Amino acid sequence: MFRLSAIPIDRPEPAEALRATTAWSFGLKRQLTLLSSVQLDCFRQGLPLRYETDVRAERGAYFVQAAQNLRPGQVLDWLLVANVNQGASEVASLNRLLRQPARLRKLVQAEIEHGTRELERIVAAADGLQKTARPLSNARHYANTLFNVMRGGIFNDGYKLDPQDLLAFVTNGDKEIAARHSSFFRSLPKPALYGDMAAAAAATGDPQLERLCREYLPLTFSRRHGDPSRPWNRFSITTRNPDGTRILNYEGNWRDIFQNWEALAVSFPDYVPGMISRFLNASTADGYNPYRITRNGIDWEVVDPHDPWSCIGYWGDHQIIYLLKLLEILEHHNPATLRGFLTREIFASANVPYRIKPYDALLANPKDTVVFDPQVEELVQQRVRARGVDGKLIWDKQGNVRLVNLTEKLLVPLLVKLSNFIPEAGIWLNTQRPEWNDANNALVGNGTSMVTLYYLRRYLMFCREIFRAQADAKFSLSVEVAGFLNELKRILQRHRSFLAGALSDRQRRRVLDDLGRAGSHYRLRIYKHGFSGRKTQLSGQALIEFFDSALEWTNHSIHSNRRPDALYHAYNLVRLDSKTELPIRRLYEMLEGQVAVLSSGHLSAEESLELLVALKHSAMYRADQHSYLLYPNRQLPRFVERNNIPAKEIRRSALLRKLLADGNRQFVERDIAGRVHFNAAVTNARDIRRILDQLAPSGYANLVKREGPDVVDLFERLFDHESFTGRSGTFFGYEGLGSIYWHMVSKLLLAAQETFFHAVEARAPKRLCQRLADCYYDIRAGIGDYKTPQTYGGFPMDPYSHTPAQGGARQPGLTGQVKEDFLCRMGELGVFVKNGEVHFRPELLRPEEFLTAPTDFAYVDTAGIKRRLRLKAGELAFTYCQVPIIYRRSRENSLVVFLAKAAKLPCQELRLDADTSRLIFERAGQVVRIEASLDS
Amino acid sequence: MFRLSAIPIDRPEPAEALRATTAWSFGLKRQLTLLSSVQLDCFRQGLPLRYETDVRAERGAYFVQAAQNLRPGQVLDWLLVANVNQGASEVASLNRLLRQPARLRKLVQAEIEHGTRELERIVAAADGLQKTARPLSNARHYANTLFNVMRGGIFNDGYKLDPQDLLAFVTNGDKEIAARHSSFFRSLPKPALYGDMAAAAAATGDPQLERLCREYLPLTFSRRHGDPSRPWNRFSITTRNPDGTRILNYEGNWRDIFQNWEALAVSFPDYVPGMISRFLNASTADGYNPYRITRNGIDWEVVDPHDPWSCIGYWGDHQIIYLLKLLEILEHHNPATLRGFLTREIFASANVPYRIKPYDALLANPKDTVVFDPQVEELVQQRVRARGVDGKLIWDKQGNVRLVNLTEKLLVPLLVKLSNFIPEAGIWLNTQRPEWNDANNALVGNGTSMVTLYYLRRYLMFCREIFRAQADAKFSLSVEVAGFLNELKRILQRHRSFLAGALSDRQRRRVLDDLGRAGSHYRLRIYKHGFSGRKTQLSGQALIEFFDSALEWTNHSIHSNRRPDALYHAYNLVRLDSKTELPIRRLYEMLEGQVAVLSSGHLSAEESLELLVALKHSAMYRADQHSYLLYPNRQLPRFVERNNIPAKEIRRSALLRKLLADGNRQFVERDIAGRVHFNAAVTNARDIRRILDQLAPSGYANLVKREGPDVVDLFERLFDHESFTGRSGTFFGYEGLGSIYWHMVSKLLLAAQETFFHAVEARAPKRLCQRLADCYYDIRAGIGDYKTPQTYGGFPMDPYSHTPAQGGARQPGLTGQVKEDFLCRMGELGVFVKNGEVHFRPELLRPEEFLTAPTDFAYVDTAGIKRRLRLKAGELAFTYCQVPIIYRRSRENSLVVFLAKAAKLPCQELRLDADTSRLIFERAGQVVRIEASLDS
Repeated sequence: MFRLSAIPIDRPEPAEALRATTAWSFGLKRQLTLLSSVQLDCFRQGLPLRYETDVRAERGAYFVQAAQNLRPGQVLDWLLVANVNQGASEVASLNRLLRQPARLRKLVQAEIEHGTRELERIVAAADGLQKTARPLSNARHYANTLFNVMRGGIFNDGYKLDPQDLLAFVTNGDKEIAARHSSFFRSLPKPALYGDMAAAAAATGDPQLERLCREYLPLTFSRRHGDPSRPWNRFSITTRNPDGTRILNYEGNWRDIFQNWEALAVSFPDYVPGMISRFLNASTADGYNPYRITRNGIDWEVVDPHDPWSCIGYWGDHQIIYLLKLLEILEHHNPATLRGFLTREIFASANVPYRIKPYDALLANPKDTVVFDPQVEELVQQRVRARGVDGKLIWDKQGNVRLVNLTEKLLVPLLVKLSNFIPEAGIWLNTQRPEWNDANNALVGNGTSMVTLYYLRRYLMFCREIFRAQADAKFSLSVEVAGFLNELKRILQRHRSFLAGALSDRQRRRVLDDLGRAGSHYRLRIYKHGFSGRKTQLSGQALIEFFDSALEWTNHSIHSNRRPDALYHAYNLVRLDSKTELPIRRLYEMLEGQVAVLSSGHLSAEESLELLVALKHSAMYRADQHSYLLYPNRQLPRFVERNNIPAKEIRRSALLRKLLADGNRQFVERDIAGRVHFNAAVTNARDIRRILDQLAPSGYANLVKREGPDVVDLFERLFDHESFTGRSGTFFGYEGLGSIYWHMVSKLLLAAQETFFHAVEARAPKRLCQRLADCYYDIRAGIGDYKTPQTYGGFPMDPYSHTPAQGGARQPGLTGQVKEDFLCRMGELGVFVKNGEVHFRPELLRPEEFLTAPTDFAYVDTAGIKRRLRLKAGELAFTYCQVPIIYRRSRENSLVVFLAKAAKLPCQELRLDADTSRLIFERAGQVVRIEASLDS
Repeated sequence: MFRLSAIPIDRPEPAEALRATTAWSFGLKRQLTLLSSVQLDCFRQGLPLRYETDVRAERGAYFVQAAQNLRPGQVLDWLLVANVNQGASEVASLNRLLRQPARLRKLVQAEIEHGTRELERIVAAADGLQKTARPLSNARHYANTLFNVMRGGIFNDGYKLDPQDLLAFVTNGDKEIAARHSSFFRSLPKPALYGDMAAAAAATGDPQLERLCREYLPLTFSRRHGDPSRPWNRFSITTRNPDGTRILNYEGNWRDIFQNWEALAVSFPDYVPGMISRFLNASTADGYNPYRITRNGIDWEVVDPHDPWSCIGYWGDHQIIYLLKLLEILEHHNPATLRGFLTREIFASANVPYRIKPYDALLANPKDTVVFDPQVEELVQQRVRARGVDGKLIWDKQGNVRLVNLTEKLLVPLLVKLSNFIPEAGIWLNTQRPEWNDANNALVGNGTSMVTLYYLRRYLMFCREIFRAQADAKFSLSVEVAGFLNELKRILQRHRSFLAGALSDRQRRRVLDDLGRAGSHYRLRIYKHGFSGRKTQLSGQALIEFFDSALEWTNHSIHSNRRPDALYHAYNLVRLDSKTELPIRRLYEMLEGQVAVLSSGHLSAEESLELLVALKHSAMYRADQHSYLLYPNRQLPRFVERNNIPAKEIRRSALLRKLLADGNRQFVERDIAGRVHFNAAVTNARDIRRILDQLAPSGYANLVKREGPDVVDLFERLFDHESFTGRSGTFFGYEGLGSIYWHMVSKLLLAAQETFFHAVEARAPKRLCQRLADCYYDIRAGIGDYKTPQTYGGFPMDPYSHTPAQGGARQPGLTGQVKEDFLCRMGELGVFVKNGEVHFRPELLRPEEFLTAPTDFAYVDTAGIKRRLRLKAGELAFTYCQVPIIYRRSRENSLVVFLAKAAKLPCQELRLDADTSRLIFERAGQVVRIEASLDS
């Protein structure tokens, strides 16, 4: 028994530790047991050992010493078991069982099998089970699915929910709302179905109840989710309450948690409206989103002077692309719901106590732009105490959560991004936080993101499409948002003539000034006065015109970011120090930019192919891994090659000359060889300015005044800080130099797959499609399950975070790669949904995936029952929404749907009608199996 | 060269890493160099190695491979050097030097010597150099002094200070005050002397300037200071600014930082007024003190839901004893200054945003008593931003820091402690934090501290003494404080008749009710309305009468806490659940109680001896270490012996019976053998109450209502939570079971020494004094330098934190033991100050300390110059205020003072007059040496 005497805590109260870890063994002729590692050195030296029975104040261990002679061919097996979290009852049971070794052995075996089965059940529910001719790929898909679930969670019991838990969730949100709807909660069956519950909530006519109910997602098995380099992210999966019931919970960084839901949405499409609600209600009225999201609310960073990692600000682009992906899924599965949301006021906004400074202040110091407002923080905390976590949302003057429709929620981030649009450069990164990855975080301030602009184009196209069918309809918007939109539209149209060719630096500056001031005006208005509560109507047509204007500008900028080598810029740099001009500097090529532009929809099939070929020939390609770096590797300058101030700069500066003459080393120093260096304690221009301030009173005042800015400039030029991108240029692991960051490779894979299917849809020439497919599989070949363990440096069936320049793949399962690979796999199998209909389009599927010999496909049905199907050679099987699907090589395309309560349903094409598709989405066991014959 | 490409930070800005670690070697016939550990396994297996020249993304290492044949008797030596924080200039120098190996080798040797000398200089300034016949004790004293300095710091340059740094300090406090006194700062010489500076600040007539200037302490070489189990306490000593100047800084837990200053004060007595100012200005008007103190201000904990260690509250007793020790030192060295402070309004109070609840709320839940007031926090932060860290102090209505005299600052903590006085029990621990050590933190709420009461007695005696000479003088007090004092005095006098014998539980409750309500009234008044600003006058006589009343009660309680075995109780338990009675329960014996009662001055020499003898025979004595545990060791119950609910309790409880019958395991469960246990997830009564709340709605409402409190009671009885003391009863290392905590042993040593000298002073019988001296040396024999390494389990000349039941001494240098041992050592040498006069009373000094052969005593004089004195057999030497003092065995007592600018001064007794003593305190080199002949 290993235990604490009490739980160590800092509060002045008792904390009993009533659980222990038990350890035991049998099957060995035991001579001695050790309960700690204290005697190990004696053992190594062959000294006699003492039997340990009571050890204190030592880390526990469990060693059994036994001697056994083995005859040739003899098998010896034994058990060594440790069991954590055992209470008094479990210990009593174990004590009895230890007297029945045979029974105990069986129980252990059964427990192992039970655990395996339980895990399989979870993976099965998320469609992780497949059977093809490539066992490694089946295993990798299992792992991808499992890791995706461990990040984003899995729904506890399909669409079934416990009204009691829903009540707890709503009470946590707003106890008054929960209280006034007690009859609603009582009226729900136990279990209730998610869709029925949402409909019933809507039927109460209380949009606040509906809002909260829609946000409810009964997820479990989700670990705390985010960048492990940050202190908050200690991973753990808590699965069971003390009474044995499952814990329903999720928590993670906002910018991370939605991505794994994207893959989960494939298997549970009817939860997508809930995911979107959760997403949108956590985004702010000034267009951004808080740091963290949990089942129980949202969270933001506050500045803590004791914590060097504390730092406030807003991350950028995920809000666009992750939201868009969820919207696309909803549009494909359930277009009516999406369109209904456009006019239904059931969405809220987060009241994060950050205040983005006015436009002129952004220009003055674009790295210091977000102010923490302690008054808002205090107000929010008061409201949370009084009512619940709804207190973190924006309230109206009547003290209710302010509600808007989906149209407004879609427009706000779009408008805010456009108000930071710099033509030909991208979206200006001015909220103190970087885009996709922290590695580039130093781009903040004078960097712009083409990546976001590429995704924005796709977003605009999507919006255009959904409003196209409703050009005459009216959409209600807050007057503040409508005013902002109209102002941006006027600006984009006013400067339209600039689009004829390349913009001058002066023209570019004029556009940003106008856009930036419009954004500034909007946010200052709502910071200062809140929303007036007045609404106005805009027609669908007016919105479409706005999207068109924005698309004109977007397309123009994308076009101008094509490099001569057919690649596209990812991030650019801008100089903001002139009052009238805005010059651009290009950065080196990055993989992220290629992924985003492929994904934008802007490129033709030919252009996409050209890009993919160029990429393979670029410096980003890493031959030993047959894959892609985030950016070309490069040799950093050696220590002695850096921090050397050229002699001519010294000659030019009276200040530096005087400091050197005075022997003042605060700033610069001359070495033994006569070369001059900055003091090694200086880290950036802020330090230089601080030292200048210190120098000024001590006799250097005039020189500091005259030459101070030059010295700052000299420092920044010497180290080229303008193009300092952050860790990406200085790390070697993770997203660093020479390291493959696997999530981005799989993003590329998914983008290549999309490109292929778009080409097929657009009826591109067969040869072109084939070449795109080849590109897809060429990228695919770089990913683990197509590699040997030697090359991969890891288990091929496991996803990993990154592969540094030296050494193998590292950190299993920790990145969003699992989501991309899951989606790619469903794409390889050709499962797509459009207009509510399931399509099977296995155009990418390769013949070698089909079985060459009969075998069994074990799966779990939607009722949780483990089943088997016999497969023949020439077949393969997988599940989709937990329905088993068998593909068979054949001479024609057809399929048969096997139903639970009706005759089987043959179809002449590889498509299910909307009704049958709905049965699949609903996961209610109506569809027992689908068998598809494929013309291949 | 080992370096980072950049400093990893989370802010979006560049951070150059312009420093590297250089590593190099010579003296070896180098075959190969490795820069990482990557190839070590190859080396171990005898495989060929590659020379490493450029390694990335690996932890650095430096290995040199060389083969060398040695002839018998041949000596081979070489250098392997690593040097951190090297900038470009240093690297350039090294590159040149590497071509001159002989010179480089000399430089390395010189650098090592220089470092040793510098460290010696620091230790010498704090009187760490001694030369006696016991080298181990000399070394231990050196180590004690060094560790004391590394905790509390050392004054950078004696009493000299840089006006520029003072200005920085004052500006940090209040920039307006700094600005309006710019001429004051300009007028100071560079360097200025601390005493002159303080006088000049007083002469400006601005008490705010004086307050800030007096608080200035130019300390350096101090590490962050506090309990290493708390996350904040990452230790580091920052010594130099980038420009090479020394960093003047200190920071630590309030309850820790003052203790090491106590030892430092011996060597730098003229800084004591500053230490006291720092101490008092950081204490609050409701009688407590903030968590942390740094050169740049104070700091308190705020509740952070993400941090399980965050927890607010006030620690208790150190404020009394640590303050008292500093006051005693000041009184001995400079009584006039202390008396002057009593009427000078130059002290402030901290504005910590904690609010202690009203008395009735304390009774209702004595573990949850402190409320964080976010409005005060916000106000404070605003003021800090506007003016400086003075914003953390209480301001008057005019927007200035509110000033009071020392009398008020001395009274406030005393009154507050007395308002929590429970007769015969001690001071009620009701501010959410424990007393001396966290190990007993669970005593908070229903625990009372006799320890604090013992120290309070000494404090009262001290106060009585200093006001005795000023019985007719008037002292100005805030009307709120004067009212509080008068109310307490009335209460103490009203109930005086109770003191005739033991109090009844009912009488005890009446006293606490009256005292507690008075305290509650005082603090609620100042929380709600602040101080009115009105003052009133109290005579010295009135104060003395108050102290006398308090002493009557204190002495009565101390008397009643004597155990039959002559030991004294340290902490008691009280039951607060009755409305009219207040019964006491005694806890087991603790070492801390004996230390405090010895130190209280309450015991006669005979009683003290009786206690010390009893202690040696008690269960706290640990024979193998010849020393004392904090509390008797005991065998904790085994896992299966705990958490068993007796059958009769089950029979008695319908609720438990029903839960068991229903198979509801949220609460209790029956094991396979029929025994009933609490669910192992339960940790304390709070969990039980939470589960009861959850059970209530699900059919158990009536039973929960009727029997809920019984079940809570059952749980607390089963685990005896009433007497749960915290980690002390559950840890095995540190302050845990069976472990010696060395700081407390050395506190005992100091208390025993005080007892001896009091007995000598009181002219106790010679035999009694001798027995007390024997007790002293018996405790002393348990401390490291009198032990073998085998017994000690560590280096005898190093102090350690603790010695667990198994294993040797652990954690070198980390506790306050070094302070106690330093003070004890000065006491063994007999150096005392009284009425401003230095006395030499080597009554404890043992003959074996005197040298048996001639040797040199190397010391450093106050000017920083290393000097030597030749010592003869029969002599020993040490420094005091950096003046070398030679003791010589002789037939008579006399001494000679050697002066720098005057003839030597012979004295017929072992005492220096006040003028000569002053020369020593001033450390200005006037006294060159003292030679004392001792009649021994």
